[in-house]
Amino acid sequence: MPSNRSEARLQDALSDVRRLLDRHRLLETIAARQEGPRRDLLEDLQHRQNVAEFQRRLQVMHAADVAFVLEALPPGDRQAVWAQLTPDRAGQAFVEVSDAVRPSLVETTPTETLERLLSQLDAEDLAYVSESVPDEVVLRVSARLASADRTVFDDSVRFDDQQVGAVMTREWVAVPDTYTVEQAVAALRARGEVPPQTDRLFVVDARLVLVGSVPLQALLVQPPSAPVVAAMLADTPAFGPHDPAIDAVKAFERYDLVSAPVVDDRGKLVGRLTVDAAMDVLREDAELQALRSAGLREDEDLFAAPLVSARNRWPWLAINLVTAFAASRVIGQFEGAIGSLASLAALMPIVASIGGNTGNQTMAVVVRALARERIPTPDAIRLLRKELLVSLLNGAMWGAIVGLFAFGLYASPGLGVVMAGAVVLNLVVAAITGVGVPLLLYSSGRDPAQGSSVLLTFVTDAMGFFLFLGLASVFLL
Amino acid sequence: MPSNRSEARLQDALSDVRRLLDRHRLLETIAARQEGPRRDLLEDLQHRQNVAEFQRRLQVMHAADVAFVLEALPPGDRQAVWAQLTPDRAGQAFVEVSDAVRPSLVETTPTETLERLLSQLDAEDLAYVSESVPDEVVLRVSARLASADRTVFDDSVRFDDQQVGAVMTREWVAVPDTYTVEQAVAALRARGEVPPQTDRLFVVDARLVLVGSVPLQALLVQPPSAPVVAAMLADTPAFGPHDPAIDAVKAFERYDLVSAPVVDDRGKLVGRLTVDAAMDVLREDAELQALRSAGLREDEDLFAAPLVSARNRWPWLAINLVTAFAASRVIGQFEGAIGSLASLAALMPIVASIGGNTGNQTMAVVVRALARERIPTPDAIRLLRKELLVSLLNGAMWGAIVGLFAFGLYASPGLGVVMAGAVVLNLVVAAITGVGVPLLLYSSGRDPAQGSSVLLTFVTDAMGFFLFLGLASVFLL
Repeated sequence: MPSNRSEARLQDALSDVRRLLDRHRLLETIAARQEGPRRDLLEDLQHRQNVAEFQRRLQVMHAADVAFVLEALPPGDRQAVWAQLTPDRAGQAFVEVSDAVRPSLVETTPTETLERLLSQLDAEDLAYVSESVPDEVVLRVSARLASADRTVFDDSVRFDDQQVGAVMTREWVAVPDTYTVEQAVAALRARGEVPPQTDRLFVVDARLVLVGSVPLQALLVQPPSAPVVAAMLADTPAFGPHDPAIDAVKAFERYDLVSAPVVDDRGKLVGRLTVDAAMDVLREDAELQALRSAGLREDEDLFAAPLVSARNRWPWLAINLVTAFAASRVIGQFEGAIGSLASLAALMPIVASIGGNTGNQTMAVVVRALARERIPTPDAIRLLRKELLVSLLNGAMWGAIVGLFAFGLYASPGLGVVMAGAVVLNLVVAAITGVGVPLLLYSSGRDPAQGSSVLLTFVTDAMGFFLFLGLASVFLL
Repeated sequence: MPSNRSEARLQDALSDVRRLLDRHRLLETIAARQEGPRRDLLEDLQHRQNVAEFQRRLQVMHAADVAFVLEALPPGDRQAVWAQLTPDRAGQAFVEVSDAVRPSLVETTPTETLERLLSQLDAEDLAYVSESVPDEVVLRVSARLASADRTVFDDSVRFDDQQVGAVMTREWVAVPDTYTVEQAVAALRARGEVPPQTDRLFVVDARLVLVGSVPLQALLVQPPSAPVVAAMLADTPAFGPHDPAIDAVKAFERYDLVSAPVVDDRGKLVGRLTVDAAMDVLREDAELQALRSAGLREDEDLFAAPLVSARNRWPWLAINLVTAFAASRVIGQFEGAIGSLASLAALMPIVASIGGNTGNQTMAVVVRALARERIPTPDAIRLLRKELLVSLLNGAMWGAIVGLFAFGLYASPGLGVVMAGAVVLNLVVAAITGVGVPLLLYSSGRDPAQGSSVLLTFVTDAMGFFLFLGLASVFLL
């Protein structure tokens, strides 16, 4: 019977765990109240039964689901569930859980338990989680690895998170290019099982240089006596271990890959990238983009300690404060004008705000385009021209509305005209900044999504204040 | 020889196309200048050679790469490349190209050419692109489909974009549950080829109800005489055609799936969801989130006509203008205070800005958590308490800095204290709003990412102005 509606199943698991957790707590409270010999045998039994049911429930869950439950629970509950896991399950869940949540598990686990749990992991998983674990623990556990695994571990930790080498697996099936289809099938059968996400065998020459790949279905469909190279795909996309992982992911999307070989500079097979790793990279990249564009340094545990959270947010707050001060100094230059016409102070945030908004819209379109493809200079100029046209269109419309509003409110035609003019000019500023800032960040090798919003808002705020207060000083005072 | 560095290959293709396009343009200009009988035969030949090379280059590119090139080119160039494609290639590229760019291709294509190109597509692809094509063209093309394809087409267009039914394929391999492994392999071999992303066969009973699935590698590894159900995976995740596609994608990520069955209410197999479709859904969802949180209604072509672009941006600009007006009215109530102390006008945007920033940080964390899992009420309260603590920590620190700045600048201790107090209070407002707004939007069934930033900025702006100007009126004037 297929398990339909996996999302519903997951929520069921979560509420089961919550329920068992509540009972667990209740029974523990009761047990704590009954000290010494007066302890009720029945309740003691109930307690042990509940613990057993709890562990059974966790045991049948997929490791990814256990990780989901751990992430969804606040610290106390998280620790209670964590304590109920067998070392084996705990190890798997530890790998699956997000980078932001892993430290909270490390903190609450005694060093020996942590070592026991980490020694359940294979070398690649150990390398994957090694950044979240104290160095001395990693050293002790990795020292106990068999020498082949040790090599894999040392090789894995060499790459940084963003590289293909860090997310590839070192498990694959390769056959020599001299094999027939039948021999390839026999080799598979002798192996007994194939690594997950194996949709193709890699074909290598005598020096282990990749020659191509053969889809599994070709093995099933081709005559057994055919040479394996005849069933080979001509054009196998391959990646280098130092390639940016996100570029490889784009190739997975574009060519609908399930797995792809990773080769070194000499073309030797060194790893395999699988679609599940590609999806994780895509998801993490998207989440990180969203968090960064809101001004967070990195992903954070929903239930992190306040000081940890606060520190994650300081760098961008500090930058933003500097820009806010600078914008404030622009206004400071016009305090005389504001003193004699206080309505200027009420209207100026509108000019700044509409500039910031249109600029952010322009920027979102440019950032998205940059994430997909490069924008060459002639197109950048064309793009700027288009965005300037859009801003003039928007400026004419919103400028008129804003101007009428100012006129209606303060019965001053001059104020209305100045307001409308400032809006049009600030939208032009917004278009130039919205196209220019991400292109500049990108061409200087930076992530165009990160920080561009802060920079843009600074420009549209400062210029909005300057244009409006400046025009008002010239024409109204 | 495997083609390493697929990203580089793509950029090569793009610059090849640009180069051929430039020569194409040049030769056309020359040809246009030489009218009638004085036309140079040599140049005519060159022109035809260039066109042939151009078409050859496009012909050897992957359809997804052609789509990439089309997206990256501005309208004129895009049309020139589009015109060089054979109907077959054009059809494939038309499917691969993004929703935002497709209309620009439809616009520049004569109806007959469009019909010819669409009749190259299979029923599912036709349904997929049907929204971008004029209704009467879709009707004419779909009327010519064979009746089986017609059924597929009618079935496909029933689902909306966000549902599993719209992104699933109707191609799969299923075998009866009475088969042996050998019979299953024979069935595969008789078929000759299997649909892309086939990592497993579906096993169905006599009524076509899904019983389970068998990985291809199990067929290779198991003894031929074993019943196929013995090689079956016990727990095959399956989806309903009306399930939200993004939920199914989460299951693909969580359980590292390559393909999964789609079944109707009675458990009958009606489709198959593949990992490439899941990745597309994930990518589109992430892009749309990013665009929407910047206040765009939908994805837009980088080179869209200015009026089309402008209209895509109006709804959120209008809403933002209303909130900016409202915040401006808050300031309007304090014009008297500003008239007598103009420095207030210069300082007030700082209070508003720091509130908006911290609020957006809080919100990004909450939105990310909501995208992954539900947040039950007790956790929401705990989360709010944590964010309030973070905001008090931040408030103490940044409030002190901002207060000192104000004091230093205007030599007024009172102004410094009022400024610091307003920052602390506005950060508390930001924390409450940052947790509350996405939770409210989510529990009322809305997308918590869309529009929450506008709402939050309104609250932190208005309250920032109110708190600062209000405190100043009470204590300084």
